[in-house]
Amino acid sequence: MKLSDLAVAALRAAIGDRLQLGDAIRNQHGSSEAHFPVMPPDAVAFPRTTEEVAALVRICGEYDLPIVPYGAGTSLEGQVAAVAGGLCIDLSEMNAIVTVHAEDLDCTVQAGVTREQLNEYLRDMGLFFPIDPGANATIGGMAATRASGTNAVRYGTMREAILSLTAVMPDGRIVRTARRARKSAAGYDLTRLLIGSEGTLGVITEVTLRLHGIPETISSAVCAFDTLKGAVDTVILAIQIGVPVARIEFVDEVQIAAINAYAKMDLAVKPTLFFEFHGSAASVAEQVQTVGEIAAGNGGGAFEWSNLPEERSRLWKARHQAYYAGLALRPGSTGWATDVCVPISRLAECIVETRADLDAVAIPTPIVGHVGDGNFHVLFVLDPDNPEEAAQAERLNARLVERALAMDGTCTGEHGIGLGKQQWLVEEHGEGVDVMRAIKQALDPRGLFNPGKIFSRP
Amino acid sequence: MKLSDLAVAALRAAIGDRLQLGDAIRNQHGSSEAHFPVMPPDAVAFPRTTEEVAALVRICGEYDLPIVPYGAGTSLEGQVAAVAGGLCIDLSEMNAIVTVHAEDLDCTVQAGVTREQLNEYLRDMGLFFPIDPGANATIGGMAATRASGTNAVRYGTMREAILSLTAVMPDGRIVRTARRARKSAAGYDLTRLLIGSEGTLGVITEVTLRLHGIPETISSAVCAFDTLKGAVDTVILAIQIGVPVARIEFVDEVQIAAINAYAKMDLAVKPTLFFEFHGSAASVAEQVQTVGEIAAGNGGGAFEWSNLPEERSRLWKARHQAYYAGLALRPGSTGWATDVCVPISRLAECIVETRADLDAVAIPTPIVGHVGDGNFHVLFVLDPDNPEEAAQAERLNARLVERALAMDGTCTGEHGIGLGKQQWLVEEHGEGVDVMRAIKQALDPRGLFNPGKIFSRP
Repeated sequence: MKLSDLAVAALRAAIGDRLQLGDAIRNQHGSSEAHFPVMPPDAVAFPRTTEEVAALVRICGEYDLPIVPYGAGTSLEGQVAAVAGGLCIDLSEMNAIVTVHAEDLDCTVQAGVTREQLNEYLRDMGLFFPIDPGANATIGGMAATRASGTNAVRYGTMREAILSLTAVMPDGRIVRTARRARKSAAGYDLTRLLIGSEGTLGVITEVTLRLHGIPETISSAVCAFDTLKGAVDTVILAIQIGVPVARIEFVDEVQIAAINAYAKMDLAVKPTLFFEFHGSAASVAEQVQTVGEIAAGNGGGAFEWSNLPEERSRLWKARHQAYYAGLALRPGSTGWATDVCVPISRLAECIVETRADLDAVAIPTPIVGHVGDGNFHVLFVLDPDNPEEAAQAERLNARLVERALAMDGTCTGEHGIGLGKQQWLVEEHGEGVDVMRAIKQALDPRGLFNPGKIFSRP
Repeated sequence: MKLSDLAVAALRAAIGDRLQLGDAIRNQHGSSEAHFPVMPPDAVAFPRTTEEVAALVRICGEYDLPIVPYGAGTSLEGQVAAVAGGLCIDLSEMNAIVTVHAEDLDCTVQAGVTREQLNEYLRDMGLFFPIDPGANATIGGMAATRASGTNAVRYGTMREAILSLTAVMPDGRIVRTARRARKSAAGYDLTRLLIGSEGTLGVITEVTLRLHGIPETISSAVCAFDTLKGAVDTVILAIQIGVPVARIEFVDEVQIAAINAYAKMDLAVKPTLFFEFHGSAASVAEQVQTVGEIAAGNGGGAFEWSNLPEERSRLWKARHQAYYAGLALRPGSTGWATDVCVPISRLAECIVETRADLDAVAIPTPIVGHVGDGNFHVLFVLDPDNPEEAAQAERLNARLVERALAMDGTCTGEHGIGLGKQQWLVEEHGEGVDVMRAIKQALDPRGLFNPGKIFSRP
């Protein structure tokens, strides 16, 4: 598709030189950190208000232009690829923190605010926003992909963290999905419908979030285990007996070796758990003791503690760099990250079988997991010049997803469907996908909102 | 509408004598505990399986019969009224607890299982299901109305408690909305779309729920305050500093007097908080101390403790009987229960203004509230032979809802829209209601699923 001069003129009339047509910026917006080929939009817009977004949406409707919302470009299943060209709406200039209601533990931000920016802003108020997918994603992008991450075991995912959204719908209407009350039984849950819709039903422009007080005590620890099963069983038991662990992350030995090399650390190259405990001093002490006993009973070694903020930061930075550490295992490599989520009772079995499956190929495949939720990731570290490896990754990914589905799990715990998981969406949801399509058809009958994502046929 | 002989024959062919046509049973199913007039269905069906429900739905489609799903009839906004006649689908014979996965802290139940039945079943396994709207509602009904109740401040509402639903959609398709994984980013959130849809989008037939371990220590207390504001400010501060209170219920002096009379108790006739604390012994002790200090600083008297299970039961039974205790203030009266929910920073102001407003009329109007969420209820205890009182209640209810909306609250925290709150749904959601209507139209184009609820015009 090629933008007509008329369309360009109309878009320019709406946002002036914040419409960009250059190759570099289009290519940048058509790529992500994932393994998908670059699919650039025809133009990139940088609106500053919800009303500007609505104006852009109306113009795109007039000129039949597809719309791809863009946050930080950190999605992993090709959600920002402009498969049919059209207009990329980059929300990065909508980065205002609109209001913080400290007394209500909530805030409203524009969609382009990043989670690190928000937490920086909140710190002096003694508040924080817990959802942490690793990447410094935008809040709008996190909403659109139903992101979660390391803290979800305690604080939930974007599904629970969002009180209300403002979105521009495909017909240009601006909808605020809910009030600021903590709960409501008023009508259909449009908030949850938009969360995870990956830009296919609306462009999210503002988000009202639940916040939390920074805990009185935060304590982090690392514990290496003799076996993968011992580590995972420790997680399962801790969750089952209700220890309110804030973070409980599994890192397998392949990933530990990668982290040691990348972040210059000297962690034991064993299946490892990273923990974080939040609460009062007494509560944290109690959690630590309980989890320590469970770990010891499952072949866990000594806990290596980090109570100082800078040590904790170093530890979690190492964990968050898992992706880049993985890529660094093979300079020049391309990453293909996938994730599944299973009932926690099947988690050990799922990871053990997956590890065995992966070890049969030569591709480096570190595993990390938000295992308190039953969610884990495999990173295929691919040689981009070897198409055979991509084919292997595809086959192994398929086997991983089929394994998770057979365990009554989901084909993606947090990365979303995008371009990469569409066949399994159908396998997972069956006729539910027809219901999803009917909703898509009702709200976006012309299929202009992020076409080709979630389902290729609207 | 009158059922044709052909329709009756088709329905009988599907479920035999579990189709009932008698006046008594129809009238019972056309009434609820609320103040709406009896609107009986033309027939009542008692299916036993999801497949039977699907068969009934297909037959109703053939004969153009409205469908009203029915759980325990405890909804408060007229959700079960058969405004257009048709078939009431009573799910009470679908009362099997299908599976409990203790290790995953989840279970799957048929929609007609009641919350008390479920907790009775779970007790010996050391598990419980926390959502507690007071009435012994069915799990399916609680899902359909997005119920919450006394424990929501700690454990969330049905929105958070449900992992997956099985529902029969208007075209007769059976859809399971999600797998058993704790989280998923796979496609639109059909689970949350059906939760709170009040039977207008599908008949919920099975529900997979998150469970919790019964806490090691449970401690309940009652504390009377000099002022309403002191009680509410205690709640606000406890929530703000993150005390994980399991229940924190406000009961105003009108309601306390009613409870004393009804349940033969001798609570001080003052604004009162009912608390429950869950956790380890040490954690509960810490919570109690913190909240005690906050209460003392806000004019709270001594905590009256109930640590023994039977004393706790007595206390919470008294709280749960608030509705009947209210009605007993005037023998022969009709109850009209309403609820709103506001940001917690506005809660004291909202209740104080409401109390003053209510005190200007002679109708007894006890207030209770799940105030940790910012949610409270007014019960109008009406003389059914005095239409003037109904008009007064209507006016006061309107003022209450307008007040809540003006505070960025919602017109209903947990009772739903049903017949009673439709005008405020529009005020609260604006064009969002058009989006809801578009979804309704897409999934139920003939408007047969619980017609007249949530919005009168599909």
